[in-house]
Amino acid sequence: MTVNQQIQLASRPTGEPTADNFRLVQETLPDLQDGQVLVKHHWLSLDPYMRGRMNDGKSYAQPQPLDAVMIGGTAGEVVASKNPHFAVGDKVVGMGGWQQYAIVDASQRGVLQKVDTTHVPLSAYLGAVGMPGATAWVGLTDIIAPKAGETVVVSAASGAVGSAVGQLAKVRGCRAVGLAGGPDKCAYVVNELGFDACIDYKQHPDLRSLSKALKEACPDGIDGYFENVGGMILDAVMLRMNAFGRIAFCGMISGYSGEPIPMTNPSLILVSRLKLQGFIVSEHMGLWPAALKELGGLVATGKLKYRESVAEGLAAAPEAFLGLLKGRNFGKQLVKLA
Amino acid sequence: MTVNQQIQLASRPTGEPTADNFRLVQETLPDLQDGQVLVKHHWLSLDPYMRGRMNDGKSYAQPQPLDAVMIGGTAGEVVASKNPHFAVGDKVVGMGGWQQYAIVDASQRGVLQKVDTTHVPLSAYLGAVGMPGATAWVGLTDIIAPKAGETVVVSAASGAVGSAVGQLAKVRGCRAVGLAGGPDKCAYVVNELGFDACIDYKQHPDLRSLSKALKEACPDGIDGYFENVGGMILDAVMLRMNAFGRIAFCGMISGYSGEPIPMTNPSLILVSRLKLQGFIVSEHMGLWPAALKELGGLVATGKLKYRESVAEGLAAAPEAFLGLLKGRNFGKQLVKLA
Repeated sequence: MTVNQQIQLASRPTGEPTADNFRLVQETLPDLQDGQVLVKHHWLSLDPYMRGRMNDGKSYAQPQPLDAVMIGGTAGEVVASKNPHFAVGDKVVGMGGWQQYAIVDASQRGVLQKVDTTHVPLSAYLGAVGMPGATAWVGLTDIIAPKAGETVVVSAASGAVGSAVGQLAKVRGCRAVGLAGGPDKCAYVVNELGFDACIDYKQHPDLRSLSKALKEACPDGIDGYFENVGGMILDAVMLRMNAFGRIAFCGMISGYSGEPIPMTNPSLILVSRLKLQGFIVSEHMGLWPAALKELGGLVATGKLKYRESVAEGLAAAPEAFLGLLKGRNFGKQLVKLA
Repeated sequence: MTVNQQIQLASRPTGEPTADNFRLVQETLPDLQDGQVLVKHHWLSLDPYMRGRMNDGKSYAQPQPLDAVMIGGTAGEVVASKNPHFAVGDKVVGMGGWQQYAIVDASQRGVLQKVDTTHVPLSAYLGAVGMPGATAWVGLTDIIAPKAGETVVVSAASGAVGSAVGQLAKVRGCRAVGLAGGPDKCAYVVNELGFDACIDYKQHPDLRSLSKALKEACPDGIDGYFENVGGMILDAVMLRMNAFGRIAFCGMISGYSGEPIPMTNPSLILVSRLKLQGFIVSEHMGLWPAALKELGGLVATGKLKYRESVAEGLAAAPEAFLGLLKGRNFGKQLVKLA
């Protein structure tokens, strides 16, 4: 008899979410049915997209239901199996949610993925070799499609997605420039991740100042921008885009709570003949094998670096998630569950 | 000895341009040199892009120089030639500018194009079978790329570009919906051009009202939008775009004078996974032959209709141009010079 703890969505936020929107509950798990697998989660992934799911309004995905376990990517180990394809001890990743255990009907292909932890740590399959890494790869390869010698800028550059974007751009022979909040993150982006430059946006509270910093960091202009935040940073980058520049819209953290933030000068789309394109990585599953192959190889050989921000225990997940939305994490935000 | 009248840019506008920004001058033309052709202009084309050239600021093209003849597309007849490829009587189109005659160094390929007026009227080579038609074709075919059954919306639908966009969309089996100013233009767009619906934006002064009108005219949402104006219309259309919708940015009339007009909710680019792309037809010359072939065939067989707004005489050009910027023209704006 396995006791499971899980975190549910208790209420939808009005404006910024708070810890009160979440509820920790305990349950006893039923026995496994044929085809099912019991997974003990070692790691829970916290990601910005979860904020969108907490709303009831129009978005690209169904809202997270109230009084149900919060959606989330997980990595763990099979501890019991009634499915011939999975054995006790298998390391697996899936969408197990904010909970210690998940019973997974593993007969549906793709619901649970076995992973090899010989050269790649289990937690990396939630980050650099998982959804965030694939997000970086798809946006960079499919939308920005940079040529060697071009300049690629990415916001939230020390985060799970942004750090992979810049390093993949470097592999492709580009100049990689990050935007991050604070001197520690910027030093990490340049010194550890190998970006050519990183701008501390907190030092540039107005458009003019940020635009000037971008000009210095990108002397040949900007050819590709991987958009993770929106707002004034987008305005400043657009002013510096070269003709035929490409912007991949992956996230707009600053717009998730409250009012939408306008784009100040959309006529630049015409003036600079820009392409702006939004995407969701789960709609590009055909690209995942190529993405994960390159990402896994780069991690295994030490060429793709990443950093993890680890909260301890399921009960710490809500605060860690709220911190993520405010940019308090440093690298991929995880919760260690076992 | 040929006397030529021309209109020059006398000063750059601050805000809305006025007739004072233009100057009519008279000159005596020099004798032709070897390789040159003297063209008598029958038609001058007036187009919104000219407004951008009047500014000194950053744009996709060099500013129109002060005290020089205004740039503009022209159609006319060769009246003298020292070039073996052109004979007196040839009908030609080129960028002759706001003047009665042009001396063209026709040895450079593409500067002057001979056209066949057997089935297509000369003036159409400045409209439906010229730059505006090619603009419609490139934006629709290369960026929006609509499938049969999809809904395509175009603003400035009764204009030279917009009218071609909707009719080409109908040829491709799409639902075509226009936006135009006033009941006369809307009736023309539906009854003469064959669009499925046309919204009089002047009847919808706020976002809520315009959005509702779009919902009624586009019951299955909007898959492609051909953007000629910017501002609130763009905001309203974006709210109604289907997932994976495409927006071709061709012009933003409402932003040419004064301050840029923001895009209210750019996060829709992500939420609806939109692609927004700006383009300038002169940068897609490789597509022109296919475009002009289809457009010429449709005009010759009466399947592509168009309307012309004709000002009489060169001196009328400035007022006609100012009217064009205010949407006072009805169809392709031309000046009849001979």
